[in-house]
Amino acid sequence: MIPNILAERYASSAMKAIWSPEGKVRLERELWIAVMKAQRDLGLDIPAEAITAYQSVVDQIDLASIDARERITRHDVKARIEEFCELAGHEHIHKGMTSRDLTENVEQLQVHRSLGVVRTLVASALHRLAGRAKEFRSLPITARTHNVAAQITTLGKRVAMFGEELLHAAQGLEALITRYPVRGLKGAVGTQLDQLSLFHGDTIKVLELERRLATHLGVGNLFTNVGQVYPRSLDYEVIAALNLLASAPSSFAKTLRLMAGHELAGEGFAKGQVGSSAMPHKMNSRSCERINGFKVILGGHLAMASSLAGDQWNEGDVSCSVVRRVMLPDAFFAIDGLFETFLTVLDQMEANPAVIKRENQHYLPFLLSTTFLMTAIERGIGRETAHEVIKEHAVAAAHAYRAGESERNDLVSRLAADSRLGMSEAELLTCLAEGKTNAGAAEAQTDQFIDEAEVYAASVPDALDYQPGKIL
Amino acid sequence: MIPNILAERYASSAMKAIWSPEGKVRLERELWIAVMKAQRDLGLDIPAEAITAYQSVVDQIDLASIDARERITRHDVKARIEEFCELAGHEHIHKGMTSRDLTENVEQLQVHRSLGVVRTLVASALHRLAGRAKEFRSLPITARTHNVAAQITTLGKRVAMFGEELLHAAQGLEALITRYPVRGLKGAVGTQLDQLSLFHGDTIKVLELERRLATHLGVGNLFTNVGQVYPRSLDYEVIAALNLLASAPSSFAKTLRLMAGHELAGEGFAKGQVGSSAMPHKMNSRSCERINGFKVILGGHLAMASSLAGDQWNEGDVSCSVVRRVMLPDAFFAIDGLFETFLTVLDQMEANPAVIKRENQHYLPFLLSTTFLMTAIERGIGRETAHEVIKEHAVAAAHAYRAGESERNDLVSRLAADSRLGMSEAELLTCLAEGKTNAGAAEAQTDQFIDEAEVYAASVPDALDYQPGKIL
Amino acid sequence: MIPNILAERYASSAMKAIWSPEGKVRLERELWIAVMKAQRDLGLDIPAEAITAYQSVVDQIDLASIDARERITRHDVKARIEEFCELAGHEHIHKGMTSRDLTENVEQLQVHRSLGVVRTLVASALHRLAGRAKEFRSLPITARTHNVAAQITTLGKRVAMFGEELLHAAQGLEALITRYPVRGLKGAVGTQLDQLSLFHGDTIKVLELERRLATHLGVGNLFTNVGQVYPRSLDYEVIAALNLLASAPSSFAKTLRLMAGHELAGEGFAKGQVGSSAMPHKMNSRSCERINGFKVILGGHLAMASSLAGDQWNEGDVSCSVVRRVMLPDAFFAIDGLFETFLTVLDQMEANPAVIKRENQHYLPFLLSTTFLMTAIERGIGRETAHEVIKEHAVAAAHAYRAGESERNDLVSRLAADSRLGMSEAELLTCLAEGKTNAGAAEAQTDQFIDEAEVYAASVPDALDYQPGKIL
Amino acid sequence: MIPNILAERYASSAMKAIWSPEGKVRLERELWIAVMKAQRDLGLDIPAEAITAYQSVVDQIDLASIDARERITRHDVKARIEEFCELAGHEHIHKGMTSRDLTENVEQLQVHRSLGVVRTLVASALHRLAGRAKEFRSLPITARTHNVAAQITTLGKRVAMFGEELLHAAQGLEALITRYPVRGLKGAVGTQLDQLSLFHGDTIKVLELERRLATHLGVGNLFTNVGQVYPRSLDYEVIAALNLLASAPSSFAKTLRLMAGHELAGEGFAKGQVGSSAMPHKMNSRSCERINGFKVILGGHLAMASSLAGDQWNEGDVSCSVVRRVMLPDAFFAIDGLFETFLTVLDQMEANPAVIKRENQHYLPFLLSTTFLMTAIERGIGRETAHEVIKEHAVAAAHAYRAGESERNDLVSRLAADSRLGMSEAELLTCLAEGKTNAGAAEAQTDQFIDEAEVYAASVPDALDYQPGKIL
Repeated sequence: MIPNILAERYASSAMKAIWSPEGKVRLERELWIAVMKAQRDLGLDIPAEAITAYQSVVDQIDLASIDARERITRHDVKARIEEFCELAGHEHIHKGMTSRDLTENVEQLQVHRSLGVVRTLVASALHRLAGRAKEFRSLPITARTHNVAAQITTLGKRVAMFGEELLHAAQGLEALITRYPVRGLKGAVGTQLDQLSLFHGDTIKVLELERRLATHLGVGNLFTNVGQVYPRSLDYEVIAALNLLASAPSSFAKTLRLMAGHELAGEGFAKGQVGSSAMPHKMNSRSCERINGFKVILGGHLAMASSLAGDQWNEGDVSCSVVRRVMLPDAFFAIDGLFETFLTVLDQMEANPAVIKRENQHYLPFLLSTTFLMTAIERGIGRETAHEVIKEHAVAAAHAYRAGESERNDLVSRLAADSRLGMSEAELLTCLAEGKTNAGAAEAQTDQFIDEAEVYAASVPDALDYQPGKIL
Repeated sequence: MIPNILAERYASSAMKAIWSPEGKVRLERELWIAVMKAQRDLGLDIPAEAITAYQSVVDQIDLASIDARERITRHDVKARIEEFCELAGHEHIHKGMTSRDLTENVEQLQVHRSLGVVRTLVASALHRLAGRAKEFRSLPITARTHNVAAQITTLGKRVAMFGEELLHAAQGLEALITRYPVRGLKGAVGTQLDQLSLFHGDTIKVLELERRLATHLGVGNLFTNVGQVYPRSLDYEVIAALNLLASAPSSFAKTLRLMAGHELAGEGFAKGQVGSSAMPHKMNSRSCERINGFKVILGGHLAMASSLAGDQWNEGDVSCSVVRRVMLPDAFFAIDGLFETFLTVLDQMEANPAVIKRENQHYLPFLLSTTFLMTAIERGIGRETAHEVIKEHAVAAAHAYRAGESERNDLVSRLAADSRLGMSEAELLTCLAEGKTNAGAAEAQTDQFIDEAEVYAASVPDALDYQPGKIL
Repeated sequence: MIPNILAERYASSAMKAIWSPEGKVRLERELWIAVMKAQRDLGLDIPAEAITAYQSVVDQIDLASIDARERITRHDVKARIEEFCELAGHEHIHKGMTSRDLTENVEQLQVHRSLGVVRTLVASALHRLAGRAKEFRSLPITARTHNVAAQITTLGKRVAMFGEELLHAAQGLEALITRYPVRGLKGAVGTQLDQLSLFHGDTIKVLELERRLATHLGVGNLFTNVGQVYPRSLDYEVIAALNLLASAPSSFAKTLRLMAGHELAGEGFAKGQVGSSAMPHKMNSRSCERINGFKVILGGHLAMASSLAGDQWNEGDVSCSVVRRVMLPDAFFAIDGLFETFLTVLDQMEANPAVIKRENQHYLPFLLSTTFLMTAIERGIGRETAHEVIKEHAVAAAHAYRAGESERNDLVSRLAADSRLGMSEAELLTCLAEGKTNAGAAEAQTDQFIDEAEVYAASVPDALDYQPGKIL
Repeated sequence: MIPNILAERYASSAMKAIWSPEGKVRLERELWIAVMKAQRDLGLDIPAEAITAYQSVVDQIDLASIDARERITRHDVKARIEEFCELAGHEHIHKGMTSRDLTENVEQLQVHRSLGVVRTLVASALHRLAGRAKEFRSLPITARTHNVAAQITTLGKRVAMFGEELLHAAQGLEALITRYPVRGLKGAVGTQLDQLSLFHGDTIKVLELERRLATHLGVGNLFTNVGQVYPRSLDYEVIAALNLLASAPSSFAKTLRLMAGHELAGEGFAKGQVGSSAMPHKMNSRSCERINGFKVILGGHLAMASSLAGDQWNEGDVSCSVVRRVMLPDAFFAIDGLFETFLTVLDQMEANPAVIKRENQHYLPFLLSTTFLMTAIERGIGRETAHEVIKEHAVAAAHAYRAGESERNDLVSRLAADSRLGMSEAELLTCLAEGKTNAGAAEAQTDQFIDEAEVYAASVPDALDYQPGKIL
């Protein structure tokens, strides 16, 4: 059999359990039993022993047998009904239900539970990000824009920057979980005709039946007006939220790959792991690359989901069927794999303060050119003159270094030697010494992230203790 | 000049005003003045007359002059600073600010105001959908799944189905507007170093400065940890929300195109408008097709936004710049054009009850085959037998009609003639008569949508009275 | 284990064999042996018995054992080298090779072979399309634009229209297969350093080694300048071609779904298959819907491939790795499933000439309004007058039918009764009789498609006899 | 008026001329005249003076007047017919034509001509890439995989690597231009009914009419079987080809951005241009970032085009209309802007050999660890031992540098000090000296690219002399 590579190589066991073929059959059977019980309680003539019989065979799941049935009928739900009924020796499930009354609700249950798994992973990532932000809170590092040295920040602030982005996305996830509605038992075209017929038109009973189903599913909201299917824009909304959640880890991973290229930091290694065997020095950012890869995969699922949303014909067709069979589990496996990998990276990442310091020293005279300017102006040098002098020497210093004429950034000595600026080397070096750790509000900003992230993480069950599985 | 086709052909004047080049220059100048005022209030040495001078030239917007400056400096913000300062005869704007302190906040302001325009359009659409749902509340129509007749519903319910989908999306929009944070004055790499320098390290003043900026912008939330730019996943979140909002109108439009193909309903015409000139009977669903087209365009913007999210290098690069220049205005023009068109369709659409009734009559015997089955069983015919008989004749009736052997659906007479079922033609016709308006809970469901939609629409300023512009 | 749903539910055995884990291990081992043999022939010291030993264990594929090795080394290629060497009792494979020298070439081999499978499917579909075009060559049908009746065409021409679209795409596929280059043995960064070292700098030998590898792979072209990996735009080009191939079947399927909604045609059923069990008349276009679904899935893979192309860092990173593991096999499974389904639809589809004829009759007076106009003008009626009269009555006839005031299209009698036009009912009916089969050049156009399609199909091995597997 | 930002900010005048509103009106008028002439030649009663009259007013293009007409009729083509006829004082254009006979062919003409413009840009880029590859042919540089130093290559080879990718894409473009078919005069549903009526059923004349139209358009191929529209998969094929062409420049730009981060190379500056005004050392890769941005935009257009392909209903609807109005010009403006920018980067880019050399020296001992291993083995040290020793010291040297314990890569002295390896420092340094320029086959590979690129570039008119416009 050809395995689902996302599931088998990358996903957690919690996520796999939700989407396995056996797991789905079990969820369906549990739903049938829940409906049957509610129907009986509400007056339908369903013998208690039938329910018991069904319950006793819930776990006898023989996929090959179901598959054989489907190959005859070419109707997957019918195949599963027959199998369950034959096992139980009764024919009481699926009363007044259409296929979609079963499958839509079960798939939504899978989606809703998966969102819960993702929530734990996200909160756990935020907890780790807060920890790393704290660890590197006061480590000055050269901030880059356009991939070029710009000003001093701290590594903790850099972590917090991606952390705050994730926290924002997590708030979106919370809102989605809260609002997520299930379709309920709406019948073939959404009018509940068949359940109403079963209950002789008793609207109250049918509403109560749906309420009990929602309770069984553990989802708070029910759609009222749907057709054969719930609107596929809801699937799109879910996939869009997963893409949003993937963004901050992806930017983090990309930045760590860049930092590794400068040896400033790396994703670290598990104990016993080596780099490339032929080149032992080569500690590749494999996990970070993988995180970026998962983001791309989720972008593909987004394209699929977006194509389904807004394409409903009348009360619904099933041109979405094959798409959803692939997209829904795969998108959750991908986001799951992404966060499992991200958690590992957060646990194992290493900063190299010595290299960071060397980089700071190299760029610092450039980064502080504005400070030099301000100081010169304060001392009475004209702004235009000061700017001109600094610009001239800064460009010259950069060119000299790049041309091999100097082996290090000599801007300070160039400036000291230019009488127009009127600053001595000692004065300039004092500026450097003061500026090299001046990351503005970076520390205070970082603290705020840490607080908010930890509050959120603590609010999510299991998040603080969650440990990712071993990654390949 | 080559015009922006989305703006010039489809967008409303409200949306165009937000995104026009002149409009943007004005927003920037207003922001500079707001910052200047706040800086002065907080103690910076900025003369009152400078502020007055800037204010007096805010509306002297000469795009050609700015453009000429940019072609020299190859730096767009610098060009606009120079222009404004020369007009005012002062150099006090942009103090302690980087380009992004200006452009990020102004673009976010444009986005936030555009979301407000969209909100009005959405609420106005919901108001109209509620009106149409009410109008067609009790009009029975043949529901279709897989594009094939399935059961009776009502046209009002069909409208409500798409309406509820839109209402769900509107709730997402509300949440997004509420949560939307602006970047604020964070400086070159996000540490606020330059504003802190200006205010000699006075953190409180810098925070107050940002608070005043947010008040000026009319946005409640501020990011804390950002780099040079705010995370592009926020843009993605906005574009994703627009795509969500487009889904229900798109499904509605697609369904109306299908209905027009059966002459059941049509999008109607403006007074004086004719169909195709060569074929006057041909009333094409041009507006509905256009709605579906806008959805596709927004899907393209979604792909762009998704590529930017998760691709931040360090404190930020500007490989997103050209993308955002195109994507942000165009996505808002597209959603605006979509809803302008949708409102017109909702105002002009026409149902053809006579054709709807003919279709119902044609399919009704099929749609009620389950009812025949139930009735037969109640009268003591075995389930298997009854099912077999009905199936046999249903398939035969369908084939006979399709083969030209009968000119109408003759299932009822076939069933009446088969003694195995034991139902007379009169009895069967009674079933038909009772069933033809039995749309289950459709009316109650519709009522619930109407209530919820009207409550929402009434909560949005200007929504109830909003009139779309004339569409091409 | 969670199966790959695309492979297990929809793909052909030929495609599954190419992408199965066992199949890939076998392809890798065959490549290693081919390289080893060539290296030995070109002078490297590799004992003949070592090659024999490797050959004897090629088929001893134990995925669990390989997997266990990988979980230790976290390096998949290393795990497979160790396994193969331990089985053979030698260490001579992979000489001068890096992981990518193995995996890139094997993956390209999989892609190239898969393109061959697709080619057969496409040619087989064209053969069937030609057959259906021939069958329906002279069956007049109401052509629709904007989903509204427009003019007469033939059903054969409609088939030929989608057929010609597919034929155009097939030409693109042929060009791609011909141009497709493999990466070859280029070493860690593309300079062939390690093979050159092995052969003491003998460039000729290294080029000959690559030539022999290409012969083994069965691919004609080799890249010259690559890095660690071949450019991912080549993967994009492949996925883009698959999307192109999917377009015509998708439009065909969508049109057949629309036709089924009018009962004009349907996708047919396998023997013994029934429609919906609850509603036996309901013959749903499940297969056509599925074809449209596969197109959406491929659109997702296109988004993934497009994100990888143009994102190479230096000589190549592997952020593409997880994406390609999913995208490449899945895209081929999807296109394979799409064509398997399409072939079945083409084999089983049914037209309903009686319904088609009814529709023609209903719309014919409208479709021929231009002919009426021309005839009137020829008889001396002024153009403006004639146009006015016809338009007036056409619109009235359409409205009357839709309003239930008439039960059929009565345009002819309306026109006959209007003395301004000066045409009798008999004359008008003669026009109708002549026009009802006048599909212009449709038949000649169709013939041309049939010829071209059959020529192409006959040029592709196995295409004429290919039979799709049984679909679910 | 809101301008099209892609056109006004980035596109070349050649591309703008093709897609400007005036330009399109002119192309339409020319097509009408070409058809009119051919119709007259083939026997239709069209007076010569009418043709002359139309010809004399071709350039009197008043967009406002046309626009005013459209706002009345809500039919764009009708508006343009009326305008042209009124100007000419005749009514002979558009005979036997539908709107799509005009617009489809004109749009295809725009597409085909734009592909020609792109072809020149691509060939011009290849010419420049060949020039840069030659310039840097023998400059050793540290190749990176996973963004980590891997082996020595040359900068010329790196350029050639992206160059060969572009050359491969250019071949695809050539094939597309050659195969590109136009729709021709097929009438309302593709059967040519109206032209056949005009010519009294004379098929030969209608075919000749189309042939003459194709000659006028300058396109070699004609579709035979189409509906109202040509298949939108052809648009998709075009957009997909543009995305393919954008890939190599995008990877090149991304790599140059990475190199700029290490100061190894930069995109250079136009004369007089400065870096960031506040930070004069900061020479940002703005143009390279822009290239990457254009690639993202084209990815959005790809998503749009992919959604249109495979979505044809019957003989065609126009839900594609608004999409194509935006997508077709914008995609060509984007690819045009991308290549204009790329040409400028290729003209201005600068390498910094001194920095490149420093990097090589730093990493060389790691890059040559395999060579050390080989040499040690040749001298009789056991492979396992040698590997162990080298790995131990390589990891230690990397860690020491990163931890600040050493200020440079001291692997050589570590190895020299370890008696197990038995190599003196002098011997190791000899290895280094020999290895530091050993880029394997890089130079020969580069030469092959240069030859092929120059042959191609020389075959494209105007390519060698093409100069990009000044970029913003």
